[in-house]
Amino acid sequence: MEIHKGLEGVVVSETRISSIVENQLLFAGFNIDDLVAENVPFEEVIYLLWHLKIPTAHELARFKQDLSAAMPISDTIVTCLKIQTRQNLHPMSVLRSTISLLGVFDPNAEETDDPSSYQQSIALQAKMPTIIAAYARLRKGLDPIAPRSDLSIAANFLYMLTGEEAGEIQVTAMNQALVLHADHDLNASTFTARVCASTLSDIYSCITAAIGSLKGPLHGGANERVFDMLTEIDSGTLSVEEYLNQKLDRKEKVMGFGHRVYKTEDPRKKHLKKLAKELTALTQKEQWYFLSCQVERYLKETKGLIPNVDFYSATVYHCLAIDSDLFTLIFAMSRVSGWLGHIYEQKKEDCLIRPRSHYVGPQQLAYRTFDSELHSGGIEA
Amino acid sequence: MEIHKGLEGVVVSETRISSIVENQLLFAGFNIDDLVAENVPFEEVIYLLWHLKIPTAHELARFKQDLSAAMPISDTIVTCLKIQTRQNLHPMSVLRSTISLLGVFDPNAEETDDPSSYQQSIALQAKMPTIIAAYARLRKGLDPIAPRSDLSIAANFLYMLTGEEAGEIQVTAMNQALVLHADHDLNASTFTARVCASTLSDIYSCITAAIGSLKGPLHGGANERVFDMLTEIDSGTLSVEEYLNQKLDRKEKVMGFGHRVYKTEDPRKKHLKKLAKELTALTQKEQWYFLSCQVERYLKETKGLIPNVDFYSATVYHCLAIDSDLFTLIFAMSRVSGWLGHIYEQKKEDCLIRPRSHYVGPQQLAYRTFDSELHSGGIEA
Repeated sequence: MEIHKGLEGVVVSETRISSIVENQLLFAGFNIDDLVAENVPFEEVIYLLWHLKIPTAHELARFKQDLSAAMPISDTIVTCLKIQTRQNLHPMSVLRSTISLLGVFDPNAEETDDPSSYQQSIALQAKMPTIIAAYARLRKGLDPIAPRSDLSIAANFLYMLTGEEAGEIQVTAMNQALVLHADHDLNASTFTARVCASTLSDIYSCITAAIGSLKGPLHGGANERVFDMLTEIDSGTLSVEEYLNQKLDRKEKVMGFGHRVYKTEDPRKKHLKKLAKELTALTQKEQWYFLSCQVERYLKETKGLIPNVDFYSATVYHCLAIDSDLFTLIFAMSRVSGWLGHIYEQKKEDCLIRPRSHYVGPQQLAYRTFDSELHSGGIEA
Repeated sequence: MEIHKGLEGVVVSETRISSIVENQLLFAGFNIDDLVAENVPFEEVIYLLWHLKIPTAHELARFKQDLSAAMPISDTIVTCLKIQTRQNLHPMSVLRSTISLLGVFDPNAEETDDPSSYQQSIALQAKMPTIIAAYARLRKGLDPIAPRSDLSIAANFLYMLTGEEAGEIQVTAMNQALVLHADHDLNASTFTARVCASTLSDIYSCITAAIGSLKGPLHGGANERVFDMLTEIDSGTLSVEEYLNQKLDRKEKVMGFGHRVYKTEDPRKKHLKKLAKELTALTQKEQWYFLSCQVERYLKETKGLIPNVDFYSATVYHCLAIDSDLFTLIFAMSRVSGWLGHIYEQKKEDCLIRPRSHYVGPQQLAYRTFDSELHSGGIEA
């Protein structure tokens, strides 16, 4: 019997949303290199992932209006965010429960057809940045800042974090980071969303489930850990080489390196590396860029490891003044666009995802043989 | 290229937790028929699924004590449950968010090794019935009832629903229903939990994700819909045959029938059918049993369809005076035991579950060709 451990290389479904072809990543046929080169707004990429075509100017304008109108969050959600504060709490847990609560408070959450499913998708996409920014402020004792209808998702998020409009370079960097993380074939969180959608569960359930998977350190949770590593090297006494050797000797995973699908180059890395270079120069944090390059070079030379999307995004987010424990939430804020596209596609496919396991334990044990042992001890709770 | 749609028949991992062999269901080698015949307490089955062995009397007593001690829920959770009330709200959404919030409030939620992971498993298993019963009362304007340390999980749940100790037959039925639903190979919710666990995400994330999948009508959500169907037949003017013919003509799925794995008989059905017969007789609701039998017979004769675990469990829960929109939550209260076992097993395997898709859309489109159209409309939000 063949056991497809980790489903490596197993094709589960057809898709029209994204593809990885010869180390290139395409969204509905469009190369991400072009989307970044043209500085396509994240809103347009969301539209592309959902409708599988570039919107006309009119369609894009309407789409932006729909998103903009859905950005504000209710007082009830703010109350729920306030309840969710304690020391050492991971903000991904807060995002997971708050998105789940959005479903609880949506009177149409159980309606799975259009137009309800479109409205739910718009709400999830539009409210996620508002929720993240509100929480980032609430946990510091600051009041949340309402979204502005004249700003893009990227600009709005940075504005809602600080209350000040971010500079053009920062907004462009934020937008490009959102574009680059938007979708990626059947990664673990997208696959989680599709498994959930295959039971015909509601959209909120699917997105909540996907957030749970993205949180894992072998998936989206890696970008935060990259920053922890860079900080540890920066503040420690070991050289980059010594630090990495020790880590490798202990057989620890180096976060931000390696990928199930890419063996030579992650097509997103070069863009994030460029953004990291620009932003570190702008914010006088060049040491983070140089440190990252050193780590990249050493791991490539010694172990043949290549950086993935998480490695340079850590430095990008740090330069945008985002707390490191929010990095994975930024990933979620982007990837939710892909999740929603995949949920829609999976529901149309209407096929339960239900694999099998291979049992390797003992067979047909007789319960009675254990019976006497069980009841002989005389201790009962 | 082979596309494994729905992963039908694809073996994803080895397991020691449960197996389906020749239409028999075994938990760690023990046939469920024996576990039901011996009226094994659900607590012992949980232990079996987690430790892969029958506990000694001493081990079981300690295990029950651990569960008992973890059953109460905090005032904060009660407050959160109170916030989650509105018309037409599905209680599975409430369970999903409340379980997620348990993780938010657990100061050790990010600790993934023992003893934390054991404590988290105990907490999730023990608190779920308390949460469900508390919510069932709160939404009716009643105060929650605290769990009693002298009652089993089955007895406690029925007690916390009504404030009165249930009769022996009811407790036995509840216990057996919990045992029968406890695990089932890589069903969609268990698989969801395993995909999430494969990213090394935390246990609360995995269970929250699994609840989202179980909610779907092609999975756990079916038992509630079975009851809707029986009610519709019972209160309508059509005969069973007429009703089912109309449904089949409209190509609607008949909930509670058919299974990806079982083609001739679901080994859990006979036990639930027997319980349904006993309980309907006890509660003077025989018409539900006879109606169910009629539906079963007609669908078998005309379409060769066989009932699955959800078909007779609907009548069992109804006779236990449980509201039909809580049926899937009872399923969750049981299946969480299997989910927790599988999460533990998956984490030990340490292999990211990450399949591929086959892209079937257009290739390498040039973004610039759309550029002029995009910017010609002159409408910008």
